[in-house]
Amino acid sequence: MNFHTRKWVKPEDLNPNGTLFGGTLLRWIDEEAVIYAIVQLGNSKVVTKFISEINFVSSAKAGDIIELGIQATHFGTTSITLTCEVRNKITRKSILTIDKLVFVNLDDNGNPVPHGKTEITYAFAGDRP
Amino acid sequence: MNFHTRKWVKPEDLNPNGTLFGGTLLRWIDEEAVIYAIVQLGNSKVVTKFISEINFVSSAKAGDIIELGIQATHFGTTSITLTCEVRNKITRKSILTIDKLVFVNLDDNGNPVPHGKTEITYAFAGDRP
Amino acid sequence: MNFHTRKWVKPEDLNPNGTLFGGTLLRWIDEEAVIYAIVQLGNSKVVTKFISEINFVSSAKAGDIIELGIQATHFGTTSITLTCEVRNKITRKSILTIDKLVFVNLDDNGNPVPHGKTEITYAFAGDRP
Amino acid sequence: MNFHTRKWVKPEDLNPNGTLFGGTLLRWIDEEAVIYAIVQLGNSKVVTKFISEINFVSSAKAGDIIELGIQATHFGTTSITLTCEVRNKITRKSILTIDKLVFVNLDDNGNPVPHGKTEITYAFAGDRP
Amino acid sequence: MNFHTRKWVKPEDLNPNGTLFGGTLLRWIDEEAVIYAIVQLGNSKVVTKFISEINFVSSAKAGDIIELGIQATHFGTTSITLTCEVRNKITRKSILTIDKLVFVNLDDNGNPVPHGKTEITYAFAGDRP
Amino acid sequence: MNFHTRKWVKPEDLNPNGTLFGGTLLRWIDEEAVIYAIVQLGNSKVVTKFISEINFVSSAKAGDIIELGIQATHFGTTSITLTCEVRNKITRKSILTIDKLVFVNLDDNGNPVPHGKTEITYAFAGDRP
Repeated sequence: MNFHTRKWVKPEDLNPNGTLFGGTLLRWIDEEAVIYAIVQLGNSKVVTKFISEINFVSSAKAGDIIELGIQATHFGTTSITLTCEVRNKITRKSILTIDKLVFVNLDDNGNPVPHGKTEITYAFAGDRP
Repeated sequence: MNFHTRKWVKPEDLNPNGTLFGGTLLRWIDEEAVIYAIVQLGNSKVVTKFISEINFVSSAKAGDIIELGIQATHFGTTSITLTCEVRNKITRKSILTIDKLVFVNLDDNGNPVPHGKTEITYAFAGDRP
Repeated sequence: MNFHTRKWVKPEDLNPNGTLFGGTLLRWIDEEAVIYAIVQLGNSKVVTKFISEINFVSSAKAGDIIELGIQATHFGTTSITLTCEVRNKITRKSILTIDKLVFVNLDDNGNPVPHGKTEITYAFAGDRP
Repeated sequence: MNFHTRKWVKPEDLNPNGTLFGGTLLRWIDEEAVIYAIVQLGNSKVVTKFISEINFVSSAKAGDIIELGIQATHFGTTSITLTCEVRNKITRKSILTIDKLVFVNLDDNGNPVPHGKTEITYAFAGDRP
Repeated sequence: MNFHTRKWVKPEDLNPNGTLFGGTLLRWIDEEAVIYAIVQLGNSKVVTKFISEINFVSSAKAGDIIELGIQATHFGTTSITLTCEVRNKITRKSILTIDKLVFVNLDDNGNPVPHGKTEITYAFAGDRP
Repeated sequence: MNFHTRKWVKPEDLNPNGTLFGGTLLRWIDEEAVIYAIVQLGNSKVVTKFISEINFVSSAKAGDIIELGIQATHFGTTSITLTCEVRNKITRKSILTIDKLVFVNLDDNGNPVPHGKTEITYAFAGDRP
């Protein structure tokens, strides 16, 4: 799994108990996963269809640097399934894991349409999605 | 299930395809669920531990009014399990369902501690959490 | 008066003195009142016309759960008048009251148009706007 | 009345009908008024106590530049009363007026305390608060 | 140089070290400079082309009131060059200076077009842009 | 140069002309650069000291995926100098370049302190900062 996007946990990201607000973390993950799906499917019209099994392993606090890792695990006809891990960039401690995020490939009318992809592609040699 | 919090979907809540951004919706749900857990357990130190089975049933667009429904389904010793549905306030069409959101009750040191609750409580007669 | 929408006061909502920023509270109220007006008038094109007498009774701090209550008090030909109270969800202590919020019902050209309503309606039995 | 702070109305500031969201405008005004009160009273511990008579005269749309004007109209023993107008920077058309915004001067314990001011002061010659 | 827009540094504006986040400050400056350019050129289609030499002189903390000053220093055929200073409103201590911000005047197709301006103009006597 | 963090340009990130707001882009860059500096210097107390030569090469629109690249170019005694490029993730077209971003390493009292680093380090084999 490759970790790309990083976040610096700032006061605006905290819950009243002083740790990273779970809802903010979920928002970050959804954006990162959509980006991964768009890059893999080569289509900007994708929608989140299903998310399963979110485990909140540990927390983060202000000043922590976290990184988001996504990897495709299955290519359906009109869908793509991703797995996700969020961890502390410095300590590598896991913060959250998600087994499956399923995105569906849509046509211009918003209907599911085959994407024709069967494996992870890299736009450039040595470059990861 | 009682529906309390409402949202008016504004441009700031949209994804680039012009529909409600999934990450924003997840952020709203996490806040509503935490509020429900705090009110039920009478303790503001609760953390999201597990979320399972998020089904994105339909979408929402700018101007839609949506409402968030939460209900407790199980009281563990140190945890509470909630279920959630988000729907369009006007049409009652389901937007998203989540089978289980598990929150853990913490003491001041951040360790799980029994909450002593076994059923849904209402702070006032005729009033729902 | 029914209280629907709840908020969990987070660091992002605070002023530099560590209490709930008044401007944030006003933003929450305006959204809740617009939602109420839209649901009552069955028209999404409504605009805030007048707000009168905002009394800041007490403050809120990080971690507080607050709830927003709105009720219609008068139906004009093209307008609706609401009253509002914000209170602490747990202690029921009043945080803010507003005597009157007046919204105007608009047609597609943005001109005031009669809404034909004369009393509070409930979309479903046992359901409050 | 002097107009200081300006805003460029961006998509994030709009309601679903495509005009400036009233709640966002109220948030901007509250911040500008607090700043004026702090500068006049020389004390950063001030709280909004009362706002009266908000008239929404006209609307604003994306791309409009608006400016916020505040002026002190009365100095009480522990309070200061301000008046406010928001207008379009280019056309000078009025967008909103507020008769009175009352702020109270607090001590370190959060209790009202005399501020000793009786008139508008300017920190520097040729400089307006 | 005239200082117009003011900001009250709130928790949402801080970095994890408790001082004003530099990125937030840059966002405020870009908006203020665009507003100045639009008012001077009488055209809302302007884009930031170049920013040079940003010196972070001192920091700001929660509760500080800061003010943003902008002044035109050069009028090109299709561009305008501005200079900027941000300072603490109360102490007048400099927080940041920028030598040059260059904006380009665009036509409806997004191409540079002469703006016909050669000097700072004031919309009203006694009124500064 | 390695490109890590990605952004999906959403309506909330746009200026009124419908392109990515420059101030939002600068905010993203400052966060990414701070993260890079913290990871390289192994110290979370770093501050932005100087930014020079920001060239806005092209624009971005809603739905674009952009990626941020940062690389260290010089290690001073108490400072680190970075260079930055932002580009479209799909087309690889450059959006913005910054010659130099200088961050200073601080001790707990906020004074510059030597960081002892002289070259780019990688926390793990095969892993880039």
